[in-house]
Amino acid sequence: MMQIISTVAELRLALNNKSNTGFVPTMGNLHAGHIHLVNLAKQHSDCVVVSIFVNPLQFGVNEDLANYPRTLEADCEKLKAAGCDIVFTATVREMYPQMTQTAEGTQLNQSMTIQPPDIANDLCGASRPGHFAGVATVVAKLFNIVHPQTAFFGKKDFQQLFIIRELVKQLNYPIQIIAGETVRETSGLALSSRNGYLSDAKKQQAAQLNQALQTIAQAIQAQNFEFDSLENAAKTKLNAAGWQVDYVTVRSALSLLPATPADRHLVILAAAKIGNTRLIDNIELSL
Amino acid sequence: MMQIISTVAELRLALNNKSNTGFVPTMGNLHAGHIHLVNLAKQHSDCVVVSIFVNPLQFGVNEDLANYPRTLEADCEKLKAAGCDIVFTATVREMYPQMTQTAEGTQLNQSMTIQPPDIANDLCGASRPGHFAGVATVVAKLFNIVHPQTAFFGKKDFQQLFIIRELVKQLNYPIQIIAGETVRETSGLALSSRNGYLSDAKKQQAAQLNQALQTIAQAIQAQNFEFDSLENAAKTKLNAAGWQVDYVTVRSALSLLPATPADRHLVILAAAKIGNTRLIDNIELSL
Repeated sequence: MMQIISTVAELRLALNNKSNTGFVPTMGNLHAGHIHLVNLAKQHSDCVVVSIFVNPLQFGVNEDLANYPRTLEADCEKLKAAGCDIVFTATVREMYPQMTQTAEGTQLNQSMTIQPPDIANDLCGASRPGHFAGVATVVAKLFNIVHPQTAFFGKKDFQQLFIIRELVKQLNYPIQIIAGETVRETSGLALSSRNGYLSDAKKQQAAQLNQALQTIAQAIQAQNFEFDSLENAAKTKLNAAGWQVDYVTVRSALSLLPATPADRHLVILAAAKIGNTRLIDNIELSL
Repeated sequence: MMQIISTVAELRLALNNKSNTGFVPTMGNLHAGHIHLVNLAKQHSDCVVVSIFVNPLQFGVNEDLANYPRTLEADCEKLKAAGCDIVFTATVREMYPQMTQTAEGTQLNQSMTIQPPDIANDLCGASRPGHFAGVATVVAKLFNIVHPQTAFFGKKDFQQLFIIRELVKQLNYPIQIIAGETVRETSGLALSSRNGYLSDAKKQQAAQLNQALQTIAQAIQAQNFEFDSLENAAKTKLNAAGWQVDYVTVRSALSLLPATPADRHLVILAAAKIGNTRLIDNIELSL
């Protein structure tokens, strides 16, 4: 019997006697990538908690907070089918009780935040200032509420996963972070809630992002370590195909810093807009 | 039987089956103010944990980190006598395992930190940049290690107490913060580890700081709400007596913002140097 809980106090009560909780934080609009994380959580935990919270703190002023797809009923059906024990569906006010409404809009008044490492200002953070501080802060809050033994994050958001691992390590959270593989369409397109913004035609085209990463991965596996020219070729091709590329870059998977030919564990990451929809993807590569 | 534990892993193990832990974080060199907090913790908890850790992250480059008094053996005697259950005496490397030693000195490499509210840059934070970020970060780490139900902080460090309360509230720590009253010498001097830097003569003189606060408190109770002139008179008198005043200020005890005559719950705070020793004190006042 899946419980749907919307307040921190009730959630704490429900988790009071649980000793092996697995936690999957989400923003809802669940797809097979999320359900894969829930399945992993089922394997590792006696009690699976999934939070559905579109966190305003991680959205920039010109981003898609207002339009972000909210599909609570369908999400709960999927979670029930997947064997989730507790869905936590907090309101913004429940998560940010100090918030105020002014003529200029909602002020969250979250003045105590997590300051992530400099890498949070690179890659997606470069074009989304404050995004990872917002992510780290809400995840820290959720960790303090749920007290999970394990928490599950998708590899599609590789930089987010990296920062959450640092959060846990550097702030001594007694939580094991388990990464879920990216789930993809047959075309290679990584599943994402933001794919819902795409027409069918655009969705077909969107697979080009993963293809660009695959091309680079194949070149590197064929001993081409000219990362700069590989990146530039991919950007040129995507831009020519109508994308607005934010970045395509080869990084060390261990540090997320620009890769050197000495690195054995790489990750190739990209972010680009197709129309108004910003998509990200990445491929890990061990040499 | 008091346990002395120096690693995070052993501490977690020792606390594994504890459900009502009271936590007193300290920097050691314990005095009656600390022991008062331990006594409070005994009343509220089945298991009392006291940490002794001189946290480098909260010291500025020109501050007294190297000279800060370290008296572990005497501290443990006092804690044993007070009925403490566990003393946690971590090394710097245990708390900051990512630290490195370079020619320029120790680098803690704590790149994931707690960013406290703006009030952390006022009062003591104005002359100690980064101090409260360092405090909040180490307290968050310790909270994540100890998982206490209650934690105890002295009112002498009023701004620190304020920021810790915000930390708990805004990051959803399920921890009750209990404040201990300031313990004083007969002269009125607030007990502080830094009093150990003072000669007997200077210690007598140091009581002037509390007297200055008392004078302001009495004036306010006599309906004098000219806070600016009360503050200025106190500063002038202390400076004339050989102090270097950092601040003397009347604040709202609820917000720590400058007090207005409408505020009913005030706190008068001061920080000043006598010789090379920086002392702080405060008095709360309800009208």
